[in-house]
Amino acid sequence: MMLWIDFGALLGVRRATMTLAKRYEASQLVGRQVCAVVNPQLHNASVNQVLALGMPDRSGDMVLICPDRRVPDGGKLF
Amino acid sequence: MMLWIDFGALLGVRRATMTLAKRYEASQLVGRQVCAVVNPQLHNASVNQVLALGMPDRSGDMVLICPDRRVPDGGKLF
Repeated sequence: MMLWIDFGALLGVRRATMTLAKRYEASQLVGRQVCAVVNPQLHNASVNQVLALGMPDRSGDMVLICPDRRVPDGGKLF
Repeated sequence: MMLWIDFGALLGVRRATMTLAKRYEASQLVGRQVCAVVNPQLHNASVNQVLALGMPDRSGDMVLICPDRRVPDGGKLF
């Protein structure tokens, strides 16, 4: 599954490929906020630009990590 | 605010001090799952043992990061 994630004004929209098929439909992800690791120096590369963060469920499938409430796009984890 | 976070069988319960007063009541946090950075080599020290992760809201106050669905305690971010 290919995701386009908006990291706000500073980093813009970046692309990530993820294996979420077991837990998520594409339609469930539109507009959602997620947490991801970004390499700011990697621009328009053919490889994945970001790594979305998750934790394993009991089956080892990825469960996304999200802010508890809506926050501004592009905020830094701290 | 002092939190005791259960990281599962391997790491056990660890302590974190957090400044969440603006966004969270203590009663809202009981039983919640959060994401945190742990130093596994730091046992029973008087300093904070873990760093719970958050993102800033529009006021710069911390919003907790949580798994989207319930996962086993102590899972690793990946």
